[in-house]
Amino acid sequence: MTDTTENTHVATDLETAMTDAAAAAPALAASLPADRAAWLRAIADRLDADADSLVELAVRESHLTGPRLSGELVRTTFQLRLFARLVEEGRYLEATIDHADPDWPMGARPDLRRMLRPLGPAAVYAASNFPFAFSVAGGDTAAAIAAGAPVVVKAHPAHPELSRAVARHVQAALEASDAPRGVFALVEGHETGRELVLDPRLTVATFTGSLTGGRALFDLAASRPVPIPFYGELGSVNPVFVTRAAAEARAQEIADGFAASMTLGVGQFCTKPGVLLVPDGSELGERVAAAVAGASGGTMLYDAIRDGYFASLAPLAERSDVELLAGSPEPADTPTPTLYGTDAATFAAHIDELLEEHFGPAALLVRYRSDAELLEVARALDGQLTATIHGEESDAADGPAARLAEVLADKAGRVLWNGWPTGVSVTYAQQHGGPYPATTAPHFTSVGTASIGRFLRPVAYQDTPDALLPPALQEANPWRIPRLVDGELVLPA
Amino acid sequence: MTDTTENTHVATDLETAMTDAAAAAPALAASLPADRAAWLRAIADRLDADADSLVELAVRESHLTGPRLSGELVRTTFQLRLFARLVEEGRYLEATIDHADPDWPMGARPDLRRMLRPLGPAAVYAASNFPFAFSVAGGDTAAAIAAGAPVVVKAHPAHPELSRAVARHVQAALEASDAPRGVFALVEGHETGRELVLDPRLTVATFTGSLTGGRALFDLAASRPVPIPFYGELGSVNPVFVTRAAAEARAQEIADGFAASMTLGVGQFCTKPGVLLVPDGSELGERVAAAVAGASGGTMLYDAIRDGYFASLAPLAERSDVELLAGSPEPADTPTPTLYGTDAATFAAHIDELLEEHFGPAALLVRYRSDAELLEVARALDGQLTATIHGEESDAADGPAARLAEVLADKAGRVLWNGWPTGVSVTYAQQHGGPYPATTAPHFTSVGTASIGRFLRPVAYQDTPDALLPPALQEANPWRIPRLVDGELVLPA
Repeated sequence: MTDTTENTHVATDLETAMTDAAAAAPALAASLPADRAAWLRAIADRLDADADSLVELAVRESHLTGPRLSGELVRTTFQLRLFARLVEEGRYLEATIDHADPDWPMGARPDLRRMLRPLGPAAVYAASNFPFAFSVAGGDTAAAIAAGAPVVVKAHPAHPELSRAVARHVQAALEASDAPRGVFALVEGHETGRELVLDPRLTVATFTGSLTGGRALFDLAASRPVPIPFYGELGSVNPVFVTRAAAEARAQEIADGFAASMTLGVGQFCTKPGVLLVPDGSELGERVAAAVAGASGGTMLYDAIRDGYFASLAPLAERSDVELLAGSPEPADTPTPTLYGTDAATFAAHIDELLEEHFGPAALLVRYRSDAELLEVARALDGQLTATIHGEESDAADGPAARLAEVLADKAGRVLWNGWPTGVSVTYAQQHGGPYPATTAPHFTSVGTASIGRFLRPVAYQDTPDALLPPALQEANPWRIPRLVDGELVLPA
Repeated sequence: MTDTTENTHVATDLETAMTDAAAAAPALAASLPADRAAWLRAIADRLDADADSLVELAVRESHLTGPRLSGELVRTTFQLRLFARLVEEGRYLEATIDHADPDWPMGARPDLRRMLRPLGPAAVYAASNFPFAFSVAGGDTAAAIAAGAPVVVKAHPAHPELSRAVARHVQAALEASDAPRGVFALVEGHETGRELVLDPRLTVATFTGSLTGGRALFDLAASRPVPIPFYGELGSVNPVFVTRAAAEARAQEIADGFAASMTLGVGQFCTKPGVLLVPDGSELGERVAAAVAGASGGTMLYDAIRDGYFASLAPLAERSDVELLAGSPEPADTPTPTLYGTDAATFAAHIDELLEEHFGPAALLVRYRSDAELLEVARALDGQLTATIHGEESDAADGPAARLAEVLADKAGRVLWNGWPTGVSVTYAQQHGGPYPATTAPHFTSVGTASIGRFLRPVAYQDTPDALLPPALQEANPWRIPRLVDGELVLPA
């Protein structure tokens, strides 16, 4: 069904994309949630209908497996439909009404009504490692359209034909459901990506990728005459802390789980567990090394990713205080899973170098001697997307887990118990983000329904007649949405 | 009661302030909302008890009137108590629970629970024009302490003794209510302000002041190895649009209201209406000029503010396409209210220069010929804190007001109908913020309960046992707070 020869013209030049996006912004800001929900569902339906050939194309361009990519497409279309439901429910508008009150203690207050409205044209920088879910019709695009912000997607060069095929479906779906021109555009090219973030019509940008690339775009966004928010998800080593009790009770299970998580998708996840803290003297270290040695490697997404992966391992290989426990840092077409080891004192002393992300199937095993040392390592971390504790019930009650959980909540966006960080479910409570360098902006998530907030800003109306108010703020609550009225949550009857 | 001789040592050096703040952060993150509420109320009580001498000191240092400053202190202590109530209610935590669901359409989901937690040490840059409400114990400090973030206030040099007196009350209140050391500190000095935003232990900064000063600090915040969010409220001209129908129906009322609002506090409000759009050929223009000519000036906050005000008027005085309608741009100790006039075509053609903020009692009257021209001016605006429409019922139904309200909601944080932008009530629905240059970050407000969000970030817990969860996320809801559970809002019974 996908005809790639027709896709070559789906990408547009930046000037056209931004002119159309800016022109569409007011209509989109005034559009009905039900209409935007219909557009999102139409996109999902078209992608699902063409799943087989899209997955085939994705396999060819990304070297990821068919089942993995099929699952990712399911996630992607689910995500589009979840945002459709979210905008219909209307809670995301955070509608808040304070009626005029002559007795307000600081002095008479006027009638004030506040809600969120779209920022305006949004740039979405696609990632290479999720060709569907963090790319052309991925979470950022879904959240932006749901919010009512026109989207200009900068395609990732690692899957150009898939990007065009998906963009063609998005445009066809939007056209078929009578969306205004300019809701969505695809642009290509590295230099175009730089120009995009500097375009004066742009109001917000989202990015998933490397620390270097993301920081460069963040710096450009902040340097503009009119700075704009830049939501970059940059990198993370996702440390996993295994308590002594857990290492004794479940060594093999933990070793197998860790090896599976760190080698999933050839280690090309931003949530790949890159550091594993294990108690000194337990068998867990050897079992992990054996499990990693027994795991499979694979072809990486594209050559530059593979070269960057091996380049990042070189400094490790040269260190005398770090030993190779499994695999190899020698450049090869298909990297084999690789494990290094060191002790907690060395790790803490050289944390700046040893906490570097290796984007691929490599990790560092760190042996600790005491719970105090475990906590010390946790406190020395920089910002992380995730941090995981493997523990037993006894740890939660009076072992190290309670203090560890407190410290890790201060370092990471998501804290896991007895699980693995790869696999980021799309839900209401999900948080995919964390202090820098995990992300450039700590207040938001890039996965889950709360990610819509990145494309919105609050506006208050003072003493404004119903006829001039958006429906979400009109006295009769015509959209029947939950609202905060005079400080109390009011649910529609 | 205020003994200013004892206040000279209340300010501390930056290193002590940041060391204490960083040390206090974990305890503060784990503190009970009820405790933080008690601290805030203790601060409010001490300030209220010393109101007379604090206001006297404020009059001496700011040249604002006693009644104005008494009112501002009432607002300030109300604000502290409102935040106390907010944290007790717990809604601000945005607690969200998704139970594990094997049938979640994108694949089985784990148990995920998300809430907001404090960022860490916060810098608050005090403003000169609200010596109480946007200074040492003002809204930013109240919101940060409510959130659980330690605060380091950079005092404004325009009211040094008042800053110290208030800081002494804050510290005494915190000590008396057993708050951890490090919750609050006062630092002084311009260079200290630069060092503060660059301190690696700082996680967030808020600022109210000039575009130049705020942008310089924003640039420093973005340039850090670890960038931090910088919430600067910088400047605004707060345009007011008068429809033809309103000008005909209520010329004198509008003229008097405008003159009163633009000269309130000697025009030293970030919400001062600085541009008034009036229909050509109506009497309104002359009546506004007469009302401004009849209004009183006064001594400004400090010399540099006065000098900056007159310097900003100089380019206006030199223009041949702008005429002086009332007052004078000649430097004087106490500026007289000053009004310039031009037409909408000139205004639109030179909007970059004519939209400059004049911080003091000056404004620009702009005559428009048609509703189309009125809308054109609205579309040409940059980001504003507020935008106001004065209209009649007929305008709301089928006149220009509906389209104007749409355009202005895209430009400003607060849209007013038949009111004046000065006077920013502290409520749940208030929005004090807007697109750049009104603020450096469009997502948040610096007035009202929602301003607490600037000091918080989300954290999710995956499959975590109740014993390790914060109370707000435990299954039994021990704090009895509103939560979003499996996508549905659940209010405590």
